[in-house]
Amino acid sequence: MSDASLDLLSFSNPVFDSYAYWGAILVIKCMLMSIWTGYFRFKNHTIVNSEDLKIAEALGHRNVKLNTNDPDVERVRRGHLNDLENILPYLFAGLFYVLTNPSVGVASTLFKLAALARIAHTIVYTVIVIPQPARALTWFIQYFIAIYMAVSVVLYSK
Amino acid sequence: MSDASLDLLSFSNPVFDSYAYWGAILVIKCMLMSIWTGYFRFKNHTIVNSEDLKIAEALGHRNVKLNTNDPDVERVRRGHLNDLENILPYLFAGLFYVLTNPSVGVASTLFKLAALARIAHTIVYTVIVIPQPARALTWFIQYFIAIYMAVSVVLYSK
Amino acid sequence: MSDASLDLLSFSNPVFDSYAYWGAILVIKCMLMSIWTGYFRFKNHTIVNSEDLKIAEALGHRNVKLNTNDPDVERVRRGHLNDLENILPYLFAGLFYVLTNPSVGVASTLFKLAALARIAHTIVYTVIVIPQPARALTWFIQYFIAIYMAVSVVLYSK
Repeated sequence: MSDASLDLLSFSNPVFDSYAYWGAILVIKCMLMSIWTGYFRFKNHTIVNSEDLKIAEALGHRNVKLNTNDPDVERVRRGHLNDLENILPYLFAGLFYVLTNPSVGVASTLFKLAALARIAHTIVYTVIVIPQPARALTWFIQYFIAIYMAVSVVLYSK
Repeated sequence: MSDASLDLLSFSNPVFDSYAYWGAILVIKCMLMSIWTGYFRFKNHTIVNSEDLKIAEALGHRNVKLNTNDPDVERVRRGHLNDLENILPYLFAGLFYVLTNPSVGVASTLFKLAALARIAHTIVYTVIVIPQPARALTWFIQYFIAIYMAVSVVLYSK
Repeated sequence: MSDASLDLLSFSNPVFDSYAYWGAILVIKCMLMSIWTGYFRFKNHTIVNSEDLKIAEALGHRNVKLNTNDPDVERVRRGHLNDLENILPYLFAGLFYVLTNPSVGVASTLFKLAALARIAHTIVYTVIVIPQPARALTWFIQYFIAIYMAVSVVLYSK
């Protein structure tokens, strides 16, 4: 058993490979939310720090306003915070779950599904707003997978 | 030394087992804050995304208002953000700390204490609001453990 | 290859040692933002939870107001949230990157640079506010490193 566990956290373990691949995709997706927020700040002429006024004007931007309440910007920021709340705890649950040595088929399907669900969540929340239950559904898929993995870890340990 | 370190990140290492067990509990606790927020949104008839109005009404909900400032909801959301600020960096510090090969007794006591302190923090902050210093104390216990582990890692490395 | 990967997540691997050292520094830096926020709440007589009023007065504090909109406090809180958005996903990308067995020179330079950039970001954002592009630049250095590591992981896996 000790021997079997030696390779679990390496790319030669297909479960870890899948975890790291989809995990890195989610890291990129999550961090792109900053650019996405910046896009709407630029488009809607809205900034939040007074020291940014000068550089905005130097970039040829007129009528920039200090505003912490622009609807487009706030929507993307809610999407970003939702990522932090759901993706980051999930990546810990996933890491521990890899070490429980789960079946490759189940684990890699779950890692892929969770990542695709979060990408879909961002799209229906901040790109093309689609009526509910689209957002609730994409949120729930990854949420359920995260809870499933965390519970598996709790049951496996001890 | 190299040989001894091979098993550190596996459930056969009791230090890692304790870390992953209490870490998974904290992941679940942290993610349940979303449900807890949803409960107060439902109870107080308050939503934040306009596309959620229709589904709320379809579920038989009258008088739902767009509101980003409901006191109950905001309290739970502050508790959730406080979790992200404290639990997530701590889980990284804990992971690195496991690899410094600490004493089983000390490490597993700290992991358990930190998790129980965060559960208590959520209760006194968002379930039954208890006068200070209850919240400050529960916050501080886990905060101190996180800093202790991170400092241990800094001193151990190099 | 399997053999070579066994030691990657241990302090005897200089790439991991650098990752964990600078990672622990960032965990400490990130968590200190709570103290930094508390300092401005104290200085500006502003609290956010009603149950904190009594303890503030017991500590000899007069004229404490419930206020969720103090400019100094909000600036530090934006800095803190910016840390969560950038440091935490980066620490996952870095962990996976360590397992791709990168060159020690490149990897340890990137880990050091990313950590120093985030420390500088906090200083120019919340300690001594320096005109742009100081903040943008410090933000971008670590952001770019995080994306680079995540892309390396995506390309390495499979």
